[in-house]
Amino acid sequence: MSANLQQSMLDAIEIELKQQVARLDQPRTKDFHEMLTYHMGWTGDGAGPFAAGKRIRPLLTLLSVISCFDEDKNKEGKDGKINWLHAVSAASSIELIHNFSLVHDDIQDNSELRRGRKTVWANWGAPMAINVGDALFVIANQSVMDLAEHYPAEMVVKASKILSQCCLELTQGQYLDMSYEERTDLSIEDYWPMIAGKTSALLSACTHIGSLLGYANDEKMENFRLFGYHLGLAFQVQDDILGIWGDEALTGKSASSDLVEGKNSLPVLFALEKKGPFAERWHQGPISVDEVDAMADLLEKEGGKAYAEQVSEVETQKALDHLYKANPQGEAGEIIIGLANKLLKRNQ
Amino acid sequence: MSANLQQSMLDAIEIELKQQVARLDQPRTKDFHEMLTYHMGWTGDGAGPFAAGKRIRPLLTLLSVISCFDEDKNKEGKDGKINWLHAVSAASSIELIHNFSLVHDDIQDNSELRRGRKTVWANWGAPMAINVGDALFVIANQSVMDLAEHYPAEMVVKASKILSQCCLELTQGQYLDMSYEERTDLSIEDYWPMIAGKTSALLSACTHIGSLLGYANDEKMENFRLFGYHLGLAFQVQDDILGIWGDEALTGKSASSDLVEGKNSLPVLFALEKKGPFAERWHQGPISVDEVDAMADLLEKEGGKAYAEQVSEVETQKALDHLYKANPQGEAGEIIIGLANKLLKRNQ
Repeated sequence: MSANLQQSMLDAIEIELKQQVARLDQPRTKDFHEMLTYHMGWTGDGAGPFAAGKRIRPLLTLLSVISCFDEDKNKEGKDGKINWLHAVSAASSIELIHNFSLVHDDIQDNSELRRGRKTVWANWGAPMAINVGDALFVIANQSVMDLAEHYPAEMVVKASKILSQCCLELTQGQYLDMSYEERTDLSIEDYWPMIAGKTSALLSACTHIGSLLGYANDEKMENFRLFGYHLGLAFQVQDDILGIWGDEALTGKSASSDLVEGKNSLPVLFALEKKGPFAERWHQGPISVDEVDAMADLLEKEGGKAYAEQVSEVETQKALDHLYKANPQGEAGEIIIGLANKLLKRNQ
Repeated sequence: MSANLQQSMLDAIEIELKQQVARLDQPRTKDFHEMLTYHMGWTGDGAGPFAAGKRIRPLLTLLSVISCFDEDKNKEGKDGKINWLHAVSAASSIELIHNFSLVHDDIQDNSELRRGRKTVWANWGAPMAINVGDALFVIANQSVMDLAEHYPAEMVVKASKILSQCCLELTQGQYLDMSYEERTDLSIEDYWPMIAGKTSALLSACTHIGSLLGYANDEKMENFRLFGYHLGLAFQVQDDILGIWGDEALTGKSASSDLVEGKNSLPVLFALEKKGPFAERWHQGPISVDEVDAMADLLEKEGGKAYAEQVSEVETQKALDHLYKANPQGEAGEIIIGLANKLLKRNQ
């Protein structure tokens, strides 16, 4: 049952995304449209589900919508049930914003590959890629406004404001991330505002907007929002740990280690604040592939891994606390709890 | 009297723009905020009215709002008059979109100077400049949503949809412009869709949204929209003429000639379609500064200038016809007619 609902949502999300992006499918802009469909994972070399990504964000949005409904006290929709399809343009909007930021990120980071495929700028050049990102952002705005077909205009305005605030935080997180590259005085307190913008803002927008569109009351909505926010923080810290001590980072292909890439992850910032041997070596310049294993060991000995694991545990607990307070209902509620545990790498 | 109203509007626009951009004026993002205030012309080397630009678009928006009102039949506002201040966040939104597109354009065109000052990317690098443009776009979205303080949510949604459609056309125009650089088969019919996106979309959004917020009926709104649209086309064609035969293009500093920059302007596309000596030389590669005078003469002899002048005249007439049908009222109406004639370089 659960698998069916989740798959129905993922199918509906993909259809909606394709329809939204098709705004550019016009006689003179076929090639432009193709740049977007390539990035979204639908066309070109390597197209397919892996290239498209998991669509976690729009799925989380739709699950939040219907898990707000108590089966016994439904407010609207066909057959007395909420129609989650009515919220699919909001889910699509969030996924488009995520992808707009990826296209621009790849230019900013000079990344030539994403999910094993050439990035948009690597294929068509940075000027075109800037414009592709801009178009994805524009279509995200159009997508959220399409909510007006099924929701009162006041709610559309609210959803749009939440989304815009999230986007502002995205640009702030991106700014901090870029500005940190030149700094040598970073500490743990510099981590949170960057991650709040780069990861948590969008995940909290999913659960915030989802619960808004599920007609949740203010208290429930706030719990949904904070669930998404702490889910984002916990998820990012785990990603930081895997980026240094995960299989891919340590086994052979160490070029993919966050240590080689010089990423200001939480374990690294912990060690920089400590000003020990790791910090001393870090400030001397890029870590080579040969050094990765020794540096990962050093960082672990200095307590960077244990600290990050502890933080991840705290944030995970906060996320789950807010989720339980939000009290997600029915089949969607079960899926959302399962999804949270899966993202947080926990056994239920 | 007229000068006072216009100046009051320009003052209010500047205050609103500063307040909107101040969303980034937070402890950790002071430097980021400064990149935006620099671009807007408020801070840094060369700051001042010239750096800021004329704010024609937001002014046109506010003038459209109140010129919809018949003094005898006012619908709302203090003292029985519409309060154009209620629409200032929409005017600000349009100016922010214009500036977002300028920041990204400058990266795409590799332009190091704008209005005599270093561009954002020339100052802070392309990665930061991409993010500055993105932030201006986000704040434009927030600005238009602030209309909800004074207008019904349904109208805010409508205004936002108009703005987004305009932005989609901007990205399409930008795509066409960039894609034309590699093409050798261009003709006049390729000109209009590019210009419609790059110049007319935003000007028609000004008069369209302005008249919407002035509570115009559908017919009046359509005339306002088409006034802005044809104003944009006429203005662009005149800019094309000046870019080749204007004082600055011809006198000494010919490096600023559109011919040297290889711009696919209307006179050039006319000649390319004709496939005469000008087209032959154009296809052989960049025009040098030494050749500019001779090439401008050749283009004029082949009829490129006369054709563009004729097109400009036709579009100017269409713009003014729609403006008269829109029947702008009162002091604002007089200013808008004066502004149109000034932009279209006509004596009233």
